[in-house]
Amino acid sequence: MSYSYDYPRPALTVDCVVFGFDDGDLKVLLIQRNEPPFEGEWALPGGFVRMDESLEEAARRELEEETGAREMFLEQFGSFGDVHRDPRGRVVTVAYYALVKLSDQSIRAETDARSAEWRPMRALPPLAFDHEMILARALARLKEKVRREPVGFELLPKKFKLTQIQHLYEAVLGRTLDKRNFRKKLLRLGLLVPLDEQETDVRHRAAQLFRFDRKKYLRLVEKGFHFEL
Amino acid sequence: MSYSYDYPRPALTVDCVVFGFDDGDLKVLLIQRNEPPFEGEWALPGGFVRMDESLEEAARRELEEETGAREMFLEQFGSFGDVHRDPRGRVVTVAYYALVKLSDQSIRAETDARSAEWRPMRALPPLAFDHEMILARALARLKEKVRREPVGFELLPKKFKLTQIQHLYEAVLGRTLDKRNFRKKLLRLGLLVPLDEQETDVRHRAAQLFRFDRKKYLRLVEKGFHFEL
Repeated sequence: MSYSYDYPRPALTVDCVVFGFDDGDLKVLLIQRNEPPFEGEWALPGGFVRMDESLEEAARRELEEETGAREMFLEQFGSFGDVHRDPRGRVVTVAYYALVKLSDQSIRAETDARSAEWRPMRALPPLAFDHEMILARALARLKEKVRREPVGFELLPKKFKLTQIQHLYEAVLGRTLDKRNFRKKLLRLGLLVPLDEQETDVRHRAAQLFRFDRKKYLRLVEKGFHFEL
Repeated sequence: MSYSYDYPRPALTVDCVVFGFDDGDLKVLLIQRNEPPFEGEWALPGGFVRMDESLEEAARRELEEETGAREMFLEQFGSFGDVHRDPRGRVVTVAYYALVKLSDQSIRAETDARSAEWRPMRALPPLAFDHEMILARALARLKEKVRREPVGFELLPKKFKLTQIQHLYEAVLGRTLDKRNFRKKLLRLGLLVPLDEQETDVRHRAAQLFRFDRKKYLRLVEKGFHFEL
């Protein structure tokens, strides 16, 4: 069957699952809807794809409107087109997930028209449309990703403690990891460079700080691994 | 930004990269276009998404029209929406890849209106639209997949020789693999069950036949692995 232009067309949107990590907590950016359907309910940020922009451009524009930041890790992970997913008519959405450091001062959650908030994944409100399913798929993709390639660059501050990276993995995987075992496996990947500095301004025993070995990191992103956790 | 229904909408299509394996050769199903643009050129099978069908339903319908088969491994791998990808106007396509056994008699390459053929990946004609890029992305996904989970069920006959599975991996990865090394790594996965039968009707020394251990196979699909090749 050839392409056809005379038939009715579904509306096309992009939706974004923006994950942020904030020491110990995996968070996601949600928008409170201010019009029907689902008025007053929470939803993923997103919107209509314009005729003169590509899908990724539409996603980056939406993200910039919601967070003020344009440069972030962004990856398309699926399109969702069930016939009745939107009560107003046929709408197909292309979904992206983004990873941002919440420690980065340039990231905000705000928008002129709507209320936007970072909500912890462990205590989410019900979401509008099929957004709970879309979010679940994004989380599944992120879980796969952390087992296959390094992801900390996008989510951790430049210098971090081993506890922080363990909390990141725990927040993504949704379970507690054995500290000794995790550290052994992590250090074996050879990704981390110990720094001469230690954390400052702490009452407890100061912990060793690390940074990523950028070259090794990029090589492993390319090559992939299987991090058994 | 909220959804909007009053703006012009891109047309929406599905395109399918159908991989078939035919002892030694990885093939892909192509359609010869019989109308402009790109009239007479080869393209991926695909078409317009109807208002009353989901994206996957549209892909399965197209595949059934082209191959006669409806039940096959099918996975969405990306949507493509560059503004100028189709000379006739704005068209966004959701792309799927499918895996089929060419040894399966129920698979054909045919269609009423157009010429359809299985073409070997190592000798492809130029493709219409951005279909070369879409095909390259599908192949990249398949290469990832074979390193991360077992795929032979969809592409090999029920009983097969080690040579056949090695040829499958070589065809997907596009390079020759060391026989001893490949077999050692493959057998270590514990996926294969040796059969009491050997191949028949051969002049050379009869080779051992194997089948997959279905339980183990499904567990590894779930759990994933990292097959270093």
